[in-house]
Amino acid sequence: MTDYGSDTADDAADVLVLRKGTHGIPIERYADALRDRLPDRTIRLARTPSEEREAIRHAAFVTGMVLEDDLLEVAESLEVFACAYAGTGHLPLDRLEEREVAVTNASGVHGPNIGEHVVGAILWSTRRFHVATRRQRRREWRHYQAHELQGSTVTVVGMGAIGRAVCTRLEPFGVETIGVRYSPEKGGPTDEVIGFEEGPFHEALARTDYLVLACPLTETTRGLVDREALVTIDPNATIVNIARGPVIDTDALVDALRSNWIRSASLDVTDPEPLPEDHPLWNFGNVQITPHNAGHTPEYYDRLADIVAENARRFGADGSDGELKNRVRL
Amino acid sequence: MTDYGSDTADDAADVLVLRKGTHGIPIERYADALRDRLPDRTIRLARTPSEEREAIRHAAFVTGMVLEDDLLEVAESLEVFACAYAGTGHLPLDRLEEREVAVTNASGVHGPNIGEHVVGAILWSTRRFHVATRRQRRREWRHYQAHELQGSTVTVVGMGAIGRAVCTRLEPFGVETIGVRYSPEKGGPTDEVIGFEEGPFHEALARTDYLVLACPLTETTRGLVDREALVTIDPNATIVNIARGPVIDTDALVDALRSNWIRSASLDVTDPEPLPEDHPLWNFGNVQITPHNAGHTPEYYDRLADIVAENARRFGADGSDGELKNRVRL
Repeated sequence: MTDYGSDTADDAADVLVLRKGTHGIPIERYADALRDRLPDRTIRLARTPSEEREAIRHAAFVTGMVLEDDLLEVAESLEVFACAYAGTGHLPLDRLEEREVAVTNASGVHGPNIGEHVVGAILWSTRRFHVATRRQRRREWRHYQAHELQGSTVTVVGMGAIGRAVCTRLEPFGVETIGVRYSPEKGGPTDEVIGFEEGPFHEALARTDYLVLACPLTETTRGLVDREALVTIDPNATIVNIARGPVIDTDALVDALRSNWIRSASLDVTDPEPLPEDHPLWNFGNVQITPHNAGHTPEYYDRLADIVAENARRFGADGSDGELKNRVRL
Repeated sequence: MTDYGSDTADDAADVLVLRKGTHGIPIERYADALRDRLPDRTIRLARTPSEEREAIRHAAFVTGMVLEDDLLEVAESLEVFACAYAGTGHLPLDRLEEREVAVTNASGVHGPNIGEHVVGAILWSTRRFHVATRRQRRREWRHYQAHELQGSTVTVVGMGAIGRAVCTRLEPFGVETIGVRYSPEKGGPTDEVIGFEEGPFHEALARTDYLVLACPLTETTRGLVDREALVTIDPNATIVNIARGPVIDTDALVDALRSNWIRSASLDVTDPEPLPEDHPLWNFGNVQITPHNAGHTPEYYDRLADIVAENARRFGADGSDGELKNRVRL
């Protein structure tokens, strides 16, 4: 049992887990997953606000979903914050940099589950499962024709863990793949790799049947799928967005759907988010909306704990933070 | 242009195409696909009942979806009937055998499209897309947890073109696979291969997360998924049936769904078929019903024409039928 009674610098936990969980899974499971991987270390879970505020004062290695300003304020010994999300845009990055705290993210955690989500969303469109659902609701046994994925062109924007996981899983389906990334000279797991310059990107869209958005939201990717892109893309195309809502210009997307410029869209993220009840996107028969949970699976904490436990070991080994995995450049 | 005016044995077409189409695609496209592949042969499409009755009298090589008894009666020169379906149970096989007509089927046509359907159905269950659909209809943005395919065990019954296509496509998803076939000693593309004997089959079911039925309907497979099987299978399991309805005992399946013995089912075929409007299967939230159209894609006629044109060439080469592809043993 972890001893919650005393709280001095001497017996500060090796890893402090903050209390906010995610994906509807109790945060205790994350702490347990870390304990399994670090049997010789003290893992402390701060389960209440006051415990959290006390424990963080002497903690050098902290992990959690969020890090509020007022906690950072009192975290005098903080050296590493292991963020439990792949994205770190919600953290006080400027102040963490100022304080020279190393930040790591959960990049890679989402490869398998979001990879599965994306291929499922692609096949949902290929097999026109939304038509099946509608007919089933009417108890209507009536044939309809599906499409075929084989021979299609799939363009994947973002060659991170998720983009690569998508490409790996598409391999045996006999598709052509185009990867879009900042440094196309690095190559990638796709048949072609291009950059974000308008010319090549639009040229790729013109022959794209499935556009998978798996990139971070940056100044380059914000509004990447705008009206021009939607007019340019093959009218048979399906767009799968598991990146961030604003990568697509939502008004242009609604126009594209109303005017049949694309075949369908599968959106795990929207802009705005949550999607308001009166938003037109809810109502299109050829749009699939999942509530930003492409990454929600029971295995989340296990894969996260693999990364964070490894970093706790590396940090503990020589007290340095130079060799941390998934370190975020601040 | 094909000359429909005369009709003697001398100018009988090399290939006669019967008029019934399939999948909602005009049969003309099939005839055209054959013409593309056999530019030096005469392909005749009989578009009306009377044309059909006249033309079949002198035809040696006939292809079509069905062959009615009254047509077979007058088909005095018939040597090969190239069935446009993978299953031939609907043909008058006894009389074809009596008449020594060689029968070929469309086996292999369905690998890619049904392979895509099956992986789509698996991921529909893994990602719980039916939950997304229900929430979307209510305009409800609310997280839910999905499952994860990686690390699951997928049992595929039937190692024909479809079973193999499914296994190929599952390869990068990191699943364990068990194949079930008549001759397990032949091996297969799965991690394990077993036969239909009750012991090993039940043992496999007990650790099966996804059961894919891709076998022909035979005395062995009829009722294969019965009450015992449904009680034995992992309660987290999903059943995907693209074989034939009676491979599953429907009453037992309804009981299994009512009592939560399985997670979900995706049925492209049912028993009876079409599924009557008042059948309870229509109404389960965790059942996906597609109206026997897993094989319906625009590419159907092209792949069918590849097989049939090849056989027309082989048949024409020496007038023998000994070397036909996809020959059905009568």
